[in-house]
Order: sequence, then C-alpha cells, then structure tokens
Amino acid sequence: MSADTPRLARQLRFVVEIDRLKTVLRQTLLTDASRRENSAEHSWHLALMAALLAEHAGEPVDVTRTMKMVLVHDVVEIDAGDAFCYDAAANVGKEEREKLAAERIFGLLPAEQAEELRALWEEFEAGATPEARFAVALDRLQPLLQNIHSGGGSWRAHGIARAQVLRRMDPIREGAPALWPQVLEIVDRAVAEGHLTP
Amino acid sequence: MSADTPRLARQLRFVVEIDRLKTVLRQTLLTDASRRENSAEHSWHLALMAALLAEHAGEPVDVTRTMKMVLVHDVVEIDAGDAFCYDAAANVGKEEREKLAAERIFGLLPAEQAEELRALWEEFEAGATPEARFAVALDRLQPLLQNIHSGGGSWRAHGIARAQVLRRMDPIREGAPALWPQVLEIVDRAVAEGHLTP
Repeated sequence: MSADTPRLARQLRFVVEIDRLKTVLRQTLLTDASRRENSAEHSWHLALMAALLAEHAGEPVDVTRTMKMVLVHDVVEIDAGDAFCYDAAANVGKEEREKLAAERIFGLLPAEQAEELRALWEEFEAGATPEARFAVALDRLQPLLQNIHSGGGSWRAHGIARAQVLRRMDPIREGAPALWPQVLEIVDRAVAEGHLTP
Repeated sequence: MSADTPRLARQLRFVVEIDRLKTVLRQTLLTDASRRENSAEHSWHLALMAALLAEHAGEPVDVTRTMKMVLVHDVVEIDAGDAFCYDAAANVGKEEREKLAAERIFGLLPAEQAEELRALWEEFEAGATPEARFAVALDRLQPLLQNIHSGGGSWRAHGIARAQVLRRMDPIREGAPALWPQVLEIVDRAVAEGHLTP
C-alpha cells in the first residue's frame, strides 16, 4: 500500500486483513472441548473480562486502554503464528517474527493509528504499565478457566505439570492479585482431577 | 446462582458462560471462505472497527461505550441463536427469545454489571443513540466486507439480491455516512461479479 492511499481505504484494508486472526489456532480448547480456540475470539473474551474485572486489577487501570490493548495483543500472530507457551522450541525467534509482523500489519493503517496500535502491542509485550500488567494477567487467567472447564484441555493434551502452570500464572499475582486465590484453587482442583501432573 | 453468591464468583461464572458464544455460527464466511464466522470473533472484529472508524460516525460517539456495546451485542445468541437476517421465518419470536436470554445470561453478573450490560444491549437493539446507530452501522458493514472478500459468501449461498442488501445496509447512511459510498461501490461490484442478483 503506497503512502498516498486514502485514509479510509487504509483503514478498511486493515479491517479486512485482521479477519485472518480468526484462523490462528491456540492450544486452548473451548469449554465444551469441541475444538481449539482461535486468537480473535480469545481477544474478544479478554476485552469483556477487562471491562468486567477491572476492579480486581493490582493498580487502578484505564479500562478503555486495557480493552484496546487486549483487542490487538495477538494481531501479530496473523504472520508470526501462535507459539504454545509451554513449547520452548516454538518460542525461538518469536520476538523477531512478531516485530516484522507488527510492522507489516499495523503499517496498513494511517500512520497515527498504526502508531497507536503498535504502541499498545509493545506495551502489552513489555508488561511494565498497570494496564499491561492487568492485561497480561487476564491473558493468563482466561486459558486457565478454559482448561479447568474443558476437562483439562491443553494441559492434558501436553502432559503439563502443576509447577509449570503456576509459573505461567505468576503475573496474575501482581496484575490482578484478588484473583490469585482462585488461581490456586483451580490449579489444586486440576491436580486432584488428574488434569495436571502434581 | 443465588443472590448471595460472592461477587467474584458471579463475575467468573459469566466469563465462563460467554465462552459459548464462540459456538454460535453466523451465515457469514471468513474472508478465506474456509468456514462460517462465529458471533464471538465477529464481536471482536466490530470492537476494533469501533476503535478505528469512530471518526466516520454520523455524530460524535463515546468510543468506549460503543466498544462495550458491540462486545456484548450478540451475547443473547448463546440461548436465542443467530437468526439469518434475510430469513423472515427464523426471525419470528426472536425478540422474546432474546429477552429471556438477556435475563438469564446478564443475570449471572453482580446486579449493577448485569444492569450495565443489559442496558447496552437494549440500547444497541433500539438503535436510538449516536453510539447505537454507529454500532449498528458497523454490524452491517462487517458482513458486507466479509462477503465481498470471500467471493460472495452468504449472498451466493442464499441467492440474495442487490435490493435486499441495500435495505439491510441502510442504517449505515445514518450511523456512518462517510462509509456509504464504499457500500454502494461494494454492492455494485458484487452484482458485476455475480455474487448478488441484480
């Protein structure tokens, strides 16, 4: 797309392009265990969680910024794919792939909108603001809920252990501390039910 | 769920319940025509469109309210299903089914959050505020884009005519008038390409 493409055309080009996030599959299953979740519907879930659970954030957060952040946090996966969090090999080179993806995909938009969304994505990745810490916490909590309600989901499929999940969930202690007791309860239940190895 | 269920438990119950929106299929196809779109990923798409296209709304809009509105606008379909807009029979009794669904599903939340989301859904349905008019416009534009980019999508599958689509798109003229020329261009292209009957 050239620099003099009209503003609306650039915006609609981006809107059409991001449809592809619906085809990026995560390891997480839906709660009815019927299929794997995709990154677009996962992002929708997080946006509503951000609106409803903001009172549990570790610090006061701007809900609008958090919603926008989770809506775009996975858009780079259109080019870079979704790397399973417990698969070290799949995560090699991820940062570079995602950076190129951000340039191409956000770059479809008019410059100042490209800059805004890219900055939100980078903020999420850095996890260094109250909104990013809360958003990361939600991004960890949501698959935990999916897994316990789908009979173990991706944990069972990949033989994941309790300690791995607790390490993965750790950002919740800071980003949404009020939810931490729930996390521990769910993890212990998952072990008791045989979904996680002890 | 009883009235004295703790606040956080009610919120998480709702968060888990709405996962089911990912299994509600719309007639619209993804742009790669690989499968039908579901209502959760459709809602994610609209939320990002609300954030990016707000400058084209017919009147100034509160972007946050619009984003929340489109995030919840289809949640009632978990119980009520998605009625294809061009299928008159499927739309009989829809209002009553959706009202019962709203009571049950939003009712899972703590009272004031249930009230907030239910009010946003009713506002969308009534289409009588600037945010609702803009949200409805986006809800019409998005499947138009999906259809033209998927080689006709649900139009071809159901033998839809140009006049039907223009009637369906009419709210865009008020909710997002700057987008209307694009709508006409897309509809004319769809007729020329044989995706819509003249």
